[in-house]
Amino acid sequence: MVTSHSAAAARPAGVSLRRRGPVLERAILEAALEQLSSVGWNGLTMEGVAVGAQTGKAAVYRRWPSKEDLVADALRAGLPALGKAPDLGSVREDLYELCRRVRDVMYSKPGFALRAVLHECDAESAERFHELIVTGVTEPSARLFRDVVKQGVARGEVRADANDDLVLDVIPAMMMYRSKVCASEWSDGEIADLIDRIMVPLLRA
Amino acid sequence: MVTSHSAAAARPAGVSLRRRGPVLERAILEAALEQLSSVGWNGLTMEGVAVGAQTGKAAVYRRWPSKEDLVADALRAGLPALGKAPDLGSVREDLYELCRRVRDVMYSKPGFALRAVLHECDAESAERFHELIVTGVTEPSARLFRDVVKQGVARGEVRADANDDLVLDVIPAMMMYRSKVCASEWSDGEIADLIDRIMVPLLRA
Repeated sequence: MVTSHSAAAARPAGVSLRRRGPVLERAILEAALEQLSSVGWNGLTMEGVAVGAQTGKAAVYRRWPSKEDLVADALRAGLPALGKAPDLGSVREDLYELCRRVRDVMYSKPGFALRAVLHECDAESAERFHELIVTGVTEPSARLFRDVVKQGVARGEVRADANDDLVLDVIPAMMMYRSKVCASEWSDGEIADLIDRIMVPLLRA
Repeated sequence: MVTSHSAAAARPAGVSLRRRGPVLERAILEAALEQLSSVGWNGLTMEGVAVGAQTGKAAVYRRWPSKEDLVADALRAGLPALGKAPDLGSVREDLYELCRRVRDVMYSKPGFALRAVLHECDAESAERFHELIVTGVTEPSARLFRDVVKQGVARGEVRADANDDLVLDVIPAMMMYRSKVCASEWSDGEIADLIDRIMVPLLRA
């Protein structure tokens, strides 16, 4: 039986896989993430991505006019989704679950790649990738934290005026600070400590 | 009467000011900070610093073998000192005073320059400048916050077990996060909010 793998192996160099539309796009975006992880922002080339995706450079340029456009889309598509607000019966459990999801996004392959790109790229590109963090991680997670606290207020376990920006910023602030300054990778135990020793005391009715 | 100013103006170009030891060193360090602020890390040269300090390149190289050594010393010497822990009678006032000092260090000219250098320099130098933030700002301010909370415990206004790393990290975490993500410059009012709405509730007995 001829599997698709052996068919690919038998294909002469330069013959395209004839993938089209979303399938080819996904292959290019995955190759871009792969390149980012192996050679970084400075090492990544449109040509290298085309080779990685087993397609031609024209197919890449047709969809993404620049390396910056391609990398931004690859990161956006690759970052794990945060999903809907958890509703596990207590604000403690909801915050714990949500923090773990945020941690998993931060330490996903695209999450690492995004931070590395920000260190390597010039100031102009940095603005765009910074915006990607804001729209892809900061804002959606802030909305979910707000939802979770609202649920807690509705349950009567959280004080009614706790849903303010300053209190809600404590979790992302701590996650950023300790990962940057203390090189913490936010184990489940550290997340539980943050919730139990900081957030629950700040929120309780 | 010939003032030192008119004497300097009358000096032919290339004639050294004949300053020695600490006076000349301070002039070089100040010129380095000045260069950093005007042309950045990439634009700064030992020659430019020598010109700015009205001395020769050899006088600079004799003291600092590399640009990195010079800039590190200029930043270290230029960062405002945090002083001793304030003791104003209440933990609220002490934290407020200390946060304002930390803010003033962050937004001092060397504070700005240090952040700019970290963006511009390569990964190897970044490690050294990052270390400078840790030893020059992060660690000394953490010690002072700890002292202030200890004083609060001694006064009986702070719960005895509040002096833990997690609680103490909330202030620097929030200061870093909001200056990075929300472009906050930490007005006195914002500092007061942070103390009154986050820290006092977390600390009180």
